[in-house]
Amino acid sequence: MVAFPHEFIPPGTQFHTLPSPFPMKRGGVLHGARVAYETWGTLAPGKDNALLILTGLSPDAHAASSAADPTPGWWENMVGPGKPIDTDRWFVVCVNSLGSCKGSTGPASVDPSTGQPYRLAFPELSVEDIGDAAAEVVRGLGIGQLACVVGNSMGGMVALALLLRHPGIARAHINISGSARALPFSIAVRSLQREAIRLDPNWNNGEYDDATYPESGMRIARKLGVITYRSALEWDGRFGRVRLDEAIPVAGAGEEDPFGLEFQVESYLEGHARRFVRRYDPNCYLYLSRSMDWFDLAEYAGGDVLAGLAKIKVERALAIGASTDILFPVQQQQEVAEGLGRGGAQTQFLGMDSPQGHDAFLVDFDRFGPAVRGFLDGLM
Amino acid sequence: MVAFPHEFIPPGTQFHTLPSPFPMKRGGVLHGARVAYETWGTLAPGKDNALLILTGLSPDAHAASSAADPTPGWWENMVGPGKPIDTDRWFVVCVNSLGSCKGSTGPASVDPSTGQPYRLAFPELSVEDIGDAAAEVVRGLGIGQLACVVGNSMGGMVALALLLRHPGIARAHINISGSARALPFSIAVRSLQREAIRLDPNWNNGEYDDATYPESGMRIARKLGVITYRSALEWDGRFGRVRLDEAIPVAGAGEEDPFGLEFQVESYLEGHARRFVRRYDPNCYLYLSRSMDWFDLAEYAGGDVLAGLAKIKVERALAIGASTDILFPVQQQQEVAEGLGRGGAQTQFLGMDSPQGHDAFLVDFDRFGPAVRGFLDGLM
Repeated sequence: MVAFPHEFIPPGTQFHTLPSPFPMKRGGVLHGARVAYETWGTLAPGKDNALLILTGLSPDAHAASSAADPTPGWWENMVGPGKPIDTDRWFVVCVNSLGSCKGSTGPASVDPSTGQPYRLAFPELSVEDIGDAAAEVVRGLGIGQLACVVGNSMGGMVALALLLRHPGIARAHINISGSARALPFSIAVRSLQREAIRLDPNWNNGEYDDATYPESGMRIARKLGVITYRSALEWDGRFGRVRLDEAIPVAGAGEEDPFGLEFQVESYLEGHARRFVRRYDPNCYLYLSRSMDWFDLAEYAGGDVLAGLAKIKVERALAIGASTDILFPVQQQQEVAEGLGRGGAQTQFLGMDSPQGHDAFLVDFDRFGPAVRGFLDGLM
Repeated sequence: MVAFPHEFIPPGTQFHTLPSPFPMKRGGVLHGARVAYETWGTLAPGKDNALLILTGLSPDAHAASSAADPTPGWWENMVGPGKPIDTDRWFVVCVNSLGSCKGSTGPASVDPSTGQPYRLAFPELSVEDIGDAAAEVVRGLGIGQLACVVGNSMGGMVALALLLRHPGIARAHINISGSARALPFSIAVRSLQREAIRLDPNWNNGEYDDATYPESGMRIARKLGVITYRSALEWDGRFGRVRLDEAIPVAGAGEEDPFGLEFQVESYLEGHARRFVRRYDPNCYLYLSRSMDWFDLAEYAGGDVLAGLAKIKVERALAIGASTDILFPVQQQQEVAEGLGRGGAQTQFLGMDSPQGHDAFLVDFDRFGPAVRGFLDGLM
């Protein structure tokens, strides 16, 4: 059993130390903070083949296997030699988000001023801070301009913040199941996820340890996440009303659980919860989740989100999503394409008929693979 | 403060005592059980103008105001003199579901064999039991055949069970935002609501009292319910990203809540939670919620849901729903219409463009009112 708060750092992780102090958008600074990242492929002599990947809330920087870490990454089917993001052509960098517990400095990291984990003493985290930290990694690698920034889900928000606040940092952008601002349905879902964690007595205002990890709250947050990451359509076909051979008790409810799980779909959620609980730091989850609610590119243009997007200057952009996504609905990717187009980019919008909802980019490689490959081919 | 377990019984409630023992579909019997109901209008001498309303999970039998209870009911705009369900023409009966805590016998009621509340000793409750109990009320009122059964949400399931198991009990049926079986997305949502309650240490396997009411679990269950009862589309227009004047702490989180509520949509959910917590019995919630997951009319026809529906014999039927409903998607009302049509009913299906999702029937009277009125006019 690991001691919480705990950071989960994949073996192939590299680190970039941020300037100290590193100012945070909403106030406060970080001292001696670092950003975890991994790379694949080779930076060309002209340094013109760099591609940055920005992730969703929970992934680490291990997007794909490598010599340093041969375990499959979270985007293994998309990143590698000959794959849609072809590491024979591109020097690929994937950054772990500032505020996460996967190697970048966050609430689970040690605060150098106290020698103890930050917990809730970590300054308020914004999507913009995550983007600013990623920009430091790019500069640290000696890359003057990225060929492309790819952002998925929360990473799509981070990419837009990065592009707006660091003009010229990239020539092109792929925004996958992302958005330029949080809308109330997704705010409601995330707020409830955070509330489930905070209402768990073990959370204790962030002062948990291994013996008191807020397992119930994290279970509920994760299951609610998975419900909103997929789609009813997919589940109708995948699970229907198929029952388990034997009802299973909910973890923590004791062996004699009169309301045990009976349906395959419940067992699927249970599996997701068990793989997540105690493998993610609850305070980091709260900080990253809240940063998404706050994000609104309209802030940069007097309340007009399209005008905010139009301030971003890239040559080409692709916005792509799934028609079944209820968390980042496809209209938000259409909005990203429209706004970047107004800013002068040659833009393309693809609304895919993937049944897998928000998670489609993690599973529907038949649709997302060729779309990404085609766009990147056009950049060469 | 009320003492839990507690029944919440509106002042105009009447009671029908069920045959004793009353057998339950999944095993066990109830002794001395009763069903709460209210009525409006006058039963015609030929007893041919009776209309039964079956409710969703949480409402009581007080669908509309009356002399006995002038407070507005949960369907006040739909039921009354001159309203779509016109009590000048119809003798309207609304039944509180068996298993509820609003007057009908349920887990919060006293078990006559022990003198103590049933709690988890209440037998497993199915949608069919709720329908069977409602049929007893109809017979008890001396009504040989109802002119129409109207069921909303869970009540739509109950209505189908009633019609199938009590042939000839009604000439016509209106199924509103209901379904003939639970599908995995709604099972997942309800399963998670139940889990939130069960993981609340105060739930204590159903052995709570006022001092230990599982408030956190019920808060989360209710907020998750409200998220799935409405629609993202509605909330985009209604709340957008509007912020509260001042952040408010989550109830129970203490005054200094670093993750307090900031957006209007969060305050809306909080209001719903506060109006629900301690006004509903948690064990009753668990029983009714689970009954919906179990419901599947296909059980009655070798796994074919349309064939199950076709076993129901009514003269006319209307199935109606909202295109934005994610919990009981409109395809399920279309399925109800198709199946009842196969059974020989003259059927009509109306998929409304209401933005309010599953709750549309409780708020979008401009669309649902004329639809219900028009169908009922055709029965006179």
